[in-house]
Amino acid sequence: MNEATPTLPNFRSDNVAPVSPEILRAIAEANCGPAAAYGDDDYSKLLNARFSELFETEVTVFPVSTGTAANALSLASCVRPYGAIYCHEEAHIHTAEGGAAEAFTGGAKLVAMSGRNFRIEPPSLREALGRAAWGVRNRSQPDAVSITQASEYGTIYPLAEIAEIGAIAHDRNLALHMDGARFANALARLGCSPADMTWRAGVDILSFGATKNGAMSADAIVVFDQDLVEPLSYRLRRAGQTFSKMRFAAAQLLAYVEDRLYLRLAAKANAIATRLGAGLATLPDVRLVAPVEANLVFVNLPALAIDRLAANGLQFARRGQEVIRFVARFDSTEQEADEVIALVHRAISGS
Amino acid sequence: MNEATPTLPNFRSDNVAPVSPEILRAIAEANCGPAAAYGDDDYSKLLNARFSELFETEVTVFPVSTGTAANALSLASCVRPYGAIYCHEEAHIHTAEGGAAEAFTGGAKLVAMSGRNFRIEPPSLREALGRAAWGVRNRSQPDAVSITQASEYGTIYPLAEIAEIGAIAHDRNLALHMDGARFANALARLGCSPADMTWRAGVDILSFGATKNGAMSADAIVVFDQDLVEPLSYRLRRAGQTFSKMRFAAAQLLAYVEDRLYLRLAAKANAIATRLGAGLATLPDVRLVAPVEANLVFVNLPALAIDRLAANGLQFARRGQEVIRFVARFDSTEQEADEVIALVHRAISGS
Amino acid sequence: MNEATPTLPNFRSDNVAPVSPEILRAIAEANCGPAAAYGDDDYSKLLNARFSELFETEVTVFPVSTGTAANALSLASCVRPYGAIYCHEEAHIHTAEGGAAEAFTGGAKLVAMSGRNFRIEPPSLREALGRAAWGVRNRSQPDAVSITQASEYGTIYPLAEIAEIGAIAHDRNLALHMDGARFANALARLGCSPADMTWRAGVDILSFGATKNGAMSADAIVVFDQDLVEPLSYRLRRAGQTFSKMRFAAAQLLAYVEDRLYLRLAAKANAIATRLGAGLATLPDVRLVAPVEANLVFVNLPALAIDRLAANGLQFARRGQEVIRFVARFDSTEQEADEVIALVHRAISGS
Amino acid sequence: MNEATPTLPNFRSDNVAPVSPEILRAIAEANCGPAAAYGDDDYSKLLNARFSELFETEVTVFPVSTGTAANALSLASCVRPYGAIYCHEEAHIHTAEGGAAEAFTGGAKLVAMSGRNFRIEPPSLREALGRAAWGVRNRSQPDAVSITQASEYGTIYPLAEIAEIGAIAHDRNLALHMDGARFANALARLGCSPADMTWRAGVDILSFGATKNGAMSADAIVVFDQDLVEPLSYRLRRAGQTFSKMRFAAAQLLAYVEDRLYLRLAAKANAIATRLGAGLATLPDVRLVAPVEANLVFVNLPALAIDRLAANGLQFARRGQEVIRFVARFDSTEQEADEVIALVHRAISGS
Repeated sequence: MNEATPTLPNFRSDNVAPVSPEILRAIAEANCGPAAAYGDDDYSKLLNARFSELFETEVTVFPVSTGTAANALSLASCVRPYGAIYCHEEAHIHTAEGGAAEAFTGGAKLVAMSGRNFRIEPPSLREALGRAAWGVRNRSQPDAVSITQASEYGTIYPLAEIAEIGAIAHDRNLALHMDGARFANALARLGCSPADMTWRAGVDILSFGATKNGAMSADAIVVFDQDLVEPLSYRLRRAGQTFSKMRFAAAQLLAYVEDRLYLRLAAKANAIATRLGAGLATLPDVRLVAPVEANLVFVNLPALAIDRLAANGLQFARRGQEVIRFVARFDSTEQEADEVIALVHRAISGS
Repeated sequence: MNEATPTLPNFRSDNVAPVSPEILRAIAEANCGPAAAYGDDDYSKLLNARFSELFETEVTVFPVSTGTAANALSLASCVRPYGAIYCHEEAHIHTAEGGAAEAFTGGAKLVAMSGRNFRIEPPSLREALGRAAWGVRNRSQPDAVSITQASEYGTIYPLAEIAEIGAIAHDRNLALHMDGARFANALARLGCSPADMTWRAGVDILSFGATKNGAMSADAIVVFDQDLVEPLSYRLRRAGQTFSKMRFAAAQLLAYVEDRLYLRLAAKANAIATRLGAGLATLPDVRLVAPVEANLVFVNLPALAIDRLAANGLQFARRGQEVIRFVARFDSTEQEADEVIALVHRAISGS
Repeated sequence: MNEATPTLPNFRSDNVAPVSPEILRAIAEANCGPAAAYGDDDYSKLLNARFSELFETEVTVFPVSTGTAANALSLASCVRPYGAIYCHEEAHIHTAEGGAAEAFTGGAKLVAMSGRNFRIEPPSLREALGRAAWGVRNRSQPDAVSITQASEYGTIYPLAEIAEIGAIAHDRNLALHMDGARFANALARLGCSPADMTWRAGVDILSFGATKNGAMSADAIVVFDQDLVEPLSYRLRRAGQTFSKMRFAAAQLLAYVEDRLYLRLAAKANAIATRLGAGLATLPDVRLVAPVEANLVFVNLPALAIDRLAANGLQFARRGQEVIRFVARFDSTEQEADEVIALVHRAISGS
Repeated sequence: MNEATPTLPNFRSDNVAPVSPEILRAIAEANCGPAAAYGDDDYSKLLNARFSELFETEVTVFPVSTGTAANALSLASCVRPYGAIYCHEEAHIHTAEGGAAEAFTGGAKLVAMSGRNFRIEPPSLREALGRAAWGVRNRSQPDAVSITQASEYGTIYPLAEIAEIGAIAHDRNLALHMDGARFANALARLGCSPADMTWRAGVDILSFGATKNGAMSADAIVVFDQDLVEPLSYRLRRAGQTFSKMRFAAAQLLAYVEDRLYLRLAAKANAIATRLGAGLATLPDVRLVAPVEANLVFVNLPALAIDRLAANGLQFARRGQEVIRFVARFDSTEQEADEVIALVHRAISGS
């Protein structure tokens, strides 16, 4: 059985991507006879070692089934039921996870902040925390800051900005969580080390996305603050997130970072997005909603043109009357990007 | 990288099993280009159709990452926060899921009942519900009965018993949940249809296990009572259980039931367990703790003999001072069973 | 033991008020020998009858210990864990109840809206609900609208506005909750019937405040939608909100509405607030933040003047650098209001 | 309005009791002009001082509206969502609070133990904790032991037994909670100091009941382990348990312990129960279910006799086919006890 081959390029989401061949091969290789369950197998044990090496510090890695699970359980490990989580108003945890963070924390509050280019701005955060009603019993108490790297609009926090946010958070004894659903895309763009973009900048716990970038079913929580490990391990189990055949998730994640595969896949997606964004930006009546820094392209164009594109069967995500999103993947091609540019041009021209 | 080849047979758990080749192949086949996310792909759509055919009624299937997720979310869909769930005192939901049912229901209560052969006995259930403080505001109100088929000890409810439990539950407006972590093993043993063992006997919602019996990471909730579908779909998403690349879970489940694969795999495991149980039962000082009806063998034997077996490196699960569990899998062999029998014999003899 | 007699008037909050003599007397009268517990006594039984008469429809009344309990449990009775509650961004449930609504609903989301004079505006509500992602599984689903009458700033919804909000809510199958912590103050101002301000305008469930206006420890939930009664009764019990000696709470509420006491007390407080607001408004550098429609007076005045007032020992609540709140009570006096006006005048003059 | 004067004595529950005159007077005295809200008033401040003196150590006292709130929130302050609470199978938290402990802890598990005379037996507790699956991720982890003093059947833990339970709990880093709904009855019986029966024996947190023994609406949590205070204070507020007019709850609790009032009231109830129990025990066909050590009398007698007593209108609580409970109160009389004995005698005789 096959998906009907789409006649038009599919830039709807990175969730529509297939699995990269390297990762599929790793799954098959892990399938050799019996292996201990629930993470006691050799692959799973290697996972912590390999990621500790990758991140240049001791980390604990917990594979989970989705980014929502990664985010909500990460936050539940460092936020009290009467705590508050500071995030951007467009953060996925706030807008698109069905209240998962509220549910797993036992009713914590998300404090949504505005911020240019869909990023929390350090001065706003400092001010918001300054205004918080510390110690006042009828106010949810600030416990964590959550940033998304790359953001939901494909913008990227510079390292200095993460570090500044980390410093603000830690000054107040808040944990810093990074939603890295598109971690590799950000890292590929910045060209820095995983350590630089995370714990060295103050990140305590990371939702490490792999599924959008070539894995099959393997996101993970990477814990830098080892105090969070034990409580998290219990929370994961009772959340139904501790896989019996853990080796297959571990094998995916090992292959994902092996020989920098994740960066190569992400760089490919980023490059296509850059090409697409640049091409679209030259068209009349088209305006980029955010700078293209990762694999996402948000453009503003006339509603009528959007209607035409949709009628044509082009796969994209509409995010408003006049806003659409294109997502490039590791398996996208330059030709597809060029085809989209041409289609948009035609839709605008009304031809 | 390979698991070290064990020199002795591994009968520790069905969770140590590899993936059956048919299912691994199905995963690879599903990996062809982009496909819609979150269950809108062709595989996922086929899943409901195929399982509806299999169960001879309209069902909705939700793949989930673990049996714990299947159980806890199934129960959360039909139990109020102030509700109670009646189950056997050895039920997995009560003893080995870290409070998942309590967590996802918002604090419902498990009422654990004793019962011969690790099954709820209909008269006990009737009596327990008769004694329940219906309508009394400071008592958790009976909302569901949960039975495990096959049970944690490998015993199996006859169809008539399920039907009687179903009738008792429905008389009181309770939902009947079946924990089918070893659904195929029970079905293979009974030789009846999936419909007979579930909705025709009153089951409203089923945790359909596949991972223990050859899948990689695909258990599922099968919903017979369609009123439960919508609330469950929201609960799954916020539980982080709605996979973006759903096609790979759907492909596993489709392959699992294709051409009765699941029954063939389970029948194999059952046969090995039967052979193992029969062989062990003939040994001096060995007593079966429960009849061997599925792929589990529980035996009582002297503590010293158990210590010797463990020291030898035989893989099994100790369940008490003098009780151990062996689990046969689809990839277990008769030779391995015979080897275990010989090892136990030797351990008892003290040689 | 006595509180030290304050030398300056206390306009800090209506929570500092004593109990009205009529209510204290009713408590004493209820203290005659044994009486059935948990609401089976004569006082409690009379409560539903008396309030049904008062509201001109069948209502069920549940006394609770605080307004926070009334709000959070009211909302929990009509909002799913994956539901959303629309409220004003200054609503007490959002800003000052420590996440109680999130906790008791099992993690629902508050959607905070701006709106002139601290009230939800019907067009904004209509638009917000129009924009809601109905049926989208990763979005909390609109379940309730909560309005505060009188609002946290003492402004009052006209009946037509409540009715419009009620119609918008019901069109979408949302419940309408009214936080009536200052219900009597609003009612006294509008001069309408309790029925007109609630169920006739679409209110399904009401947090009926009495403690701020002369009761000792008796707020209540008044349920108009009888479908909400049973689930709520269980939730209250497990929340520790079902009093064993319910007669004393019932007696307070009965006395509170007897012979329109609650309206007389509220009218008194409103009149003092009006006098105070009018007097302050004539002062230089003083600006009313909101029209004075109930017993609350919010004024903007120079930070330095506020500092001086605080240094003097005047009891008020500071709500920002240049904003303070005065609250009049049933036991406030015109002389006290005049004294405050004089003090503010002096503080501004810097003398 | 009055309750109809019962023609027969009412021994149904201590919840039917009126308020003792001393406490009613204290409420009235606290009603003098404005006072700071939420526990900043003089009465509330005195409460901690006075109870610290009473308990001979620094304690923090939180008035709450019910015993259920006291128990559930006490436990929530020292039990993790994935924790377990060890209690007797007849404990009120397990049988009669509608799942409050499960709800407020976020889904912890109650482990119910049998034990003679309705008390946890130290050896059973030691054994149960020895068997617990410490550190196993799919098992709720032992976090607290909860004992009830006096128990639901009116039996009393000797000091040495509490101390032994405390030692067992602390050896394992568990908290020890005491449900003291009938704290005064136990204390009056033992004749020891409050300190001896609590923290000196290892109690970390106490549900201090006053309502059953003469207060109006004032139970309390008394915290000995000061680390629990801050988290508890937030949990109470969001549970709707922090009263705005806290002075009236504080005044009740202050009067309750003033001049040993609580012990005098409890001793009176105990004495009546002792008289009643002794009298009933002499009757043919009557058997005490438990020794009468506090104010509760449980007797076994023929079902037919119970039916006759109920038909007569005698107020008691039926607790099984052949078991009834009588509860003596501070306002019960010897005449009433004697009348009950006579009535039971007649019911048994069939006359």
